Amino acid sequence: MKIYIYDTTLRDGTQAEEVNLSTWDKIRIAKKLDEFGVDYIEGGWPSSNPTDEQFFYEIKNYQLKNSKIVAFGSTHNPRLSPEKDDLFLKTSRVGTDVITIFGKTWDLQVREALETSLENNLKIIKNSIAYLRPKVKELIFDAEHFFDGFKENKEYALACIEAAKEAGADVIVLCDTNGGTLTHEIFEIVSFVKEKMGDIPLGIHCHNDSELAVANSIAAVRAGVVHVQGTINGYGERCGNANLCSIIPNLELKLGYKCIPEGNLSKLTEVARFVAEVANLSPFKRQPYVGSAAFTHKGGVHVSAVLKNPRCYEHIPPEKVGNRQRVVLSDLAGKSNILFKAKEYGISLDKDDPVVSELLYTIKELEAEGYEFSVADASFELLLNRALGRVKRFYTFLSFRVMDTKRSIDKEPITEATVMIEVGGKIEHTAATGKGPVNALDNALRKGLEKFYPNLKEMKLMDFKVRVLTPRSEENGGTASRVRVLIESRDNHSQWTTLGVSHNIIEASWQALVDSIDYKLFKDDIKRQRHEK
Amino acid sequence: MKIYIYDTTLRDGTQAEEVNLSTWDKIRIAKKLDEFGVDYIEGGWPSSNPTDEQFFYEIKNYQLKNSKIVAFGSTHNPRLSPEKDDLFLKTSRVGTDVITIFGKTWDLQVREALETSLENNLKIIKNSIAYLRPKVKELIFDAEHFFDGFKENKEYALACIEAAKEAGADVIVLCDTNGGTLTHEIFEIVSFVKEKMGDIPLGIHCHNDSELAVANSIAAVRAGVVHVQGTINGYGERCGNANLCSIIPNLELKLGYKCIPEGNLSKLTEVARFVAEVANLSPFKRQPYVGSAAFTHKGGVHVSAVLKNPRCYEHIPPEKVGNRQRVVLSDLAGKSNILFKAKEYGISLDKDDPVVSELLYTIKELEAEGYEFSVADASFELLLNRALGRVKRFYTFLSFRVMDTKRSIDKEPITEATVMIEVGGKIEHTAATGKGPVNALDNALRKGLEKFYPNLKEMKLMDFKVRVLTPRSEENGGTASRVRVLIESRDNHSQWTTLGVSHNIIEASWQALVDSIDYKLFKDDIKRQRHEK
Repeated sequence: MKIYIYDTTLRDGTQAEEVNLSTWDKIRIAKKLDEFGVDYIEGGWPSSNPTDEQFFYEIKNYQLKNSKIVAFGSTHNPRLSPEKDDLFLKTSRVGTDVITIFGKTWDLQVREALETSLENNLKIIKNSIAYLRPKVKELIFDAEHFFDGFKENKEYALACIEAAKEAGADVIVLCDTNGGTLTHEIFEIVSFVKEKMGDIPLGIHCHNDSELAVANSIAAVRAGVVHVQGTINGYGERCGNANLCSIIPNLELKLGYKCIPEGNLSKLTEVARFVAEVANLSPFKRQPYVGSAAFTHKGGVHVSAVLKNPRCYEHIPPEKVGNRQRVVLSDLAGKSNILFKAKEYGISLDKDDPVVSELLYTIKELEAEGYEFSVADASFELLLNRALGRVKRFYTFLSFRVMDTKRSIDKEPITEATVMIEVGGKIEHTAATGKGPVNALDNALRKGLEKFYPNLKEMKLMDFKVRVLTPRSEENGGTASRVRVLIESRDNHSQWTTLGVSHNIIEASWQALVDSIDYKLFKDDIKRQRHEK
Repeated sequence: MKIYIYDTTLRDGTQAEEVNLSTWDKIRIAKKLDEFGVDYIEGGWPSSNPTDEQFFYEIKNYQLKNSKIVAFGSTHNPRLSPEKDDLFLKTSRVGTDVITIFGKTWDLQVREALETSLENNLKIIKNSIAYLRPKVKELIFDAEHFFDGFKENKEYALACIEAAKEAGADVIVLCDTNGGTLTHEIFEIVSFVKEKMGDIPLGIHCHNDSELAVANSIAAVRAGVVHVQGTINGYGERCGNANLCSIIPNLELKLGYKCIPEGNLSKLTEVARFVAEVANLSPFKRQPYVGSAAFTHKGGVHVSAVLKNPRCYEHIPPEKVGNRQRVVLSDLAGKSNILFKAKEYGISLDKDDPVVSELLYTIKELEAEGYEFSVADASFELLLNRALGRVKRFYTFLSFRVMDTKRSIDKEPITEATVMIEVGGKIEHTAATGKGPVNALDNALRKGLEKFYPNLKEMKLMDFKVRVLTPRSEENGGTASRVRVLIESRDNHSQWTTLGVSHNIIEASWQALVDSIDYKLFKDDIKRQRHEK
């Protein structure tokens, strides 16, 4: 059976504290959602801000394959008639085939937020729907606060959605706007409404304030709704909206419903990470299905069982949602984890090889200092290959100096770095400026090396992340904290991450930078050797 | 009705990819959990690592008020008898009054992970429980993978828990180890088991792989379990365990159960943040009930409604769980949000005051550059008071220079900073070293100022955070990214956060540092003026 997926990342999702999207960000996300195959993309509330309005004009330049674009709006102003209410009219002026209008269904809200009579609100709902009906192909009514309303004044909440139905709404969406309703209540109330309302299609819109939004959406589907609203990664106001990244695989893989086009579920992890990246938010590691830790095994017992049969500790095969199994090296890890990791890089090690014990010791020492190799595969691969004597010394470090000078309160400091290295008996002493000290060091080091290793020109630094490690304490806290720096780099073939740790952010960045360059040189060297054979 | 809360943060919680706790960390968390009032604290698995074992000896030095300490272990090794199995015996040797033993109940696991016969596994469960029975006051049996087992071989799963009951277990805990079971399945299976097993108390242990762990735990309680296992903040392997920080308020505030001592629910937010801090993890903003965004309002419509009546967009009063309402200044915000914020600082502004429009303009400009005042209250308070002409100029900046020199690959760089300022017509030129460039600048600036403002000696920098802002792009990415720096400071009276933004991390840190010092001087100055009046 088909369940219609209604994505509101671009509207309700942007109500999240940290989510701010430009028109272009919204276009990129909409294209991705269309490719993934959701049925509806709610683009925004045209009358609330210019970014939202512009989106509707821009998106017309793109041919969407799977999704319909929806404009959002509210019922008309109690003090104006629909045709005189400019803000209300804006929603129909952006020219979408589908419109969603929300209206109040909780008596408390009608009196205290809308400041009108219960009777007048019924009229407002009716007039708003009736006015828009001829202007669009599909008209959806979001019954705001429906569950709170139902619990406090059942007859009135029902009268509101009855009014919307009579006036011509195609779908009635029951909203748990405050996210406070429990799962069994959702099931009971939706079942009751379903019975009462006949065959008009019902929808559900949940929030996660009680950490129940996914369960509540599924309970609603089991009670008969056919339209589910939510956002990618559960972004949204307060604790967020119902998370489509969990609802869709739960419905498809565990209950046999169809939500998105055949074969597209394996794009789920990519979609989740893409949206996080555009919104400039770190992905949530522990996120079900799509998080980087969702199929990660750390404890020794679990690791060995999962290698025998993944079903032992994985509820679904990770590939179904485009994710993958990972094994984490940690204090809890033993030799078997190192062998497993080495194998990933095509290196077969024997458990009794002394190199393995040495590596285990080194890793434990470094992890105690704050290095975390699970997030920096390239640094780990270098560590492994250095222990095996496989990494050439491409150059010798002699010294660096980096200096920031600020001479006016209104101007950024000027940064200058010098680097001295030796390559093949020749001393290279270079200098460069940069946007900040790490960028200047990066520029100076490359200046010295590119002469000898022109392949470094293909390499770009893509991302730079800093995490403060020391827990709060008076002695070592504040600006003397220990930091971990991650640098993500790429060339034309691949992408890799390296790390450094120190009390001094310059030193930590330098370590990550040097590893990144070494990794590029090492990889190309291996490739060249293979080629020569 | 009482529900027993069983916390496994110290055992299953440490299976999370990023959670590593020392013995002392565990002691601190255990004391906090006891004060909060959970019934059981599972301290660890003594035979899995020395940290876990040591915890049990250390914790005996503390008198706990509310909680019983539990040692965790598995059934005995299939190839040894209980009294010869040293790893099995370790659990009973650490001397707790309560022991929890887990055993296999899924036929697949028995065959493939335990590698023994179904019949032999029943014997192992019986012997393990019978052996431990006389050694402890309370014996809990965790039925690992019970729901997966029940779905594939119902009779066998039931035979396993029957065996544990007959051998003398006090509580049978049904575990959804892989986190793949849906809420209605949990309800049906628990109801069935409850019927079948008579009056032995049942418990539930859920994982969050389908984003249903909270809903599933509540469904189990509604089906008759009286014992709920979970962790603070839902930490745990893969997607985490059932989150006690949502389960407890859902059960107490919405279903009328008693979980923790009367009056203690308002400590919930503090407990959640304390555990995050000890585990050195950033709290999850959107976390239900306890997250900093859980009662945060951003959209203009919501802000004005919630000021009229909080019930409009809050499912519970935030104080009940020790959290609070917040209003966020953002692109979506209008003048009313600024007035609201100013009022928090005791400043009454008129909507039509030109200062308000100016502030709105400045804030929008700065936010577009990456400043985020919602996370740096002190920088916002300074901005506000500067606009109102209330902040004195305490000194004039002339210049700084900071230099990092590294002369050997094995040694950290040496850092030196010089700062030139003018105070009351006098030029101060100071120099200092430090752990990294920001620390050196901090030291040099204080050296110059403390002579004139000795109250700066009371002030400590507590935390330093860096976030890279620029989204990935070849032109501006990598080491040239724009960064936001947050500095948290405190004196004997209060704590405050300031921020800076720049492509250059030195400049961004400098801005945050200068704001932090200015804030301290401004606050003390206001206090002095009040005193003189």
